[in-house]
Amino acid sequence: MPPEDEPSSEYARILAENARYTEAFDRSALTAAPLSGIAILACMDARLDVEEALGLRTGDAHIIRNAGGRASDDAIRSLIISQELLGTDEIVVIAHTRCGLLGADEVALREQLAARTGRNLGIEFGAFTDLAAFVRDQVETLRAHPWIRRVPVHGLIFDVESGRLSEVV
Amino acid sequence: MPPEDEPSSEYARILAENARYTEAFDRSALTAAPLSGIAILACMDARLDVEEALGLRTGDAHIIRNAGGRASDDAIRSLIISQELLGTDEIVVIAHTRCGLLGADEVALREQLAARTGRNLGIEFGAFTDLAAFVRDQVETLRAHPWIRRVPVHGLIFDVESGRLSEVV
Repeated sequence: MPPEDEPSSEYARILAENARYTEAFDRSALTAAPLSGIAILACMDARLDVEEALGLRTGDAHIIRNAGGRASDDAIRSLIISQELLGTDEIVVIAHTRCGLLGADEVALREQLAARTGRNLGIEFGAFTDLAAFVRDQVETLRAHPWIRRVPVHGLIFDVESGRLSEVV
Repeated sequence: MPPEDEPSSEYARILAENARYTEAFDRSALTAAPLSGIAILACMDARLDVEEALGLRTGDAHIIRNAGGRASDDAIRSLIISQELLGTDEIVVIAHTRCGLLGADEVALREQLAARTGRNLGIEFGAFTDLAAFVRDQVETLRAHPWIRRVPVHGLIFDVESGRLSEVV
């Protein structure tokens, strides 16, 4: 782990990559409203490049991501803004195989963090045991939320080995 | 807006794009632990393609996204999982120019939603007025959190017109 005040070479690399990216960048015509009208809620997993896997270009879709691809309060906040301020009218939830939260022992994780830090925070990490049921639950949560518009809400599973999406709901 | 039970042509397109993607996909060697050790917290904005803008490849980084790029409780949950279960040791926060939340009137938004739905939920949307101060606040929140490890935490602003990242902290 790099010390707190010393950025890693990876961080220097992403800044250099951005300087290169800037040279080719011409997005001045894009507005904030996603061109596809789609808002995606997906897991943060490094093996899922949402734009690449779904053939999305810059400007196409809102992409909300967290551990698991949960319909958390914060994801719902983001989706409401997406719909109300920026006009999206379809939602796609994407979880994936081999997720770190699938079968994770969150009681052990909380105890380990409490022991290391001396602080017991009781954070719920959202581990789950059935991937398809997890996806259905997130979709149902969004469909039932009073401030989420009645738009199509899809639930998909991304296979991190084949790259294939399969529809759950 | 498409009716609730009728997917849009955009949704059909992303499924077709994924079928094409699958043919070229060979990620079987990737593990869940991000190769760069970096976890990114960014806004959901459609104009920010995080992987492209930062030169990241599939497998490189965790990407957490929400409206604004806030260090919300859910983003913190995700970052703890990223660090504890998957070993990341550096955090990059990315907000951007022309964000929908910059100067948004969230009282008006809540009133509009309450009027339309007949439900008053009091959700805080996280509007802000000073972009650089917002980035600094998110970085400080992460640096101060007892369950986030003492790793480098950077704060950047992405310019949606030039594609350029600038460092705030």
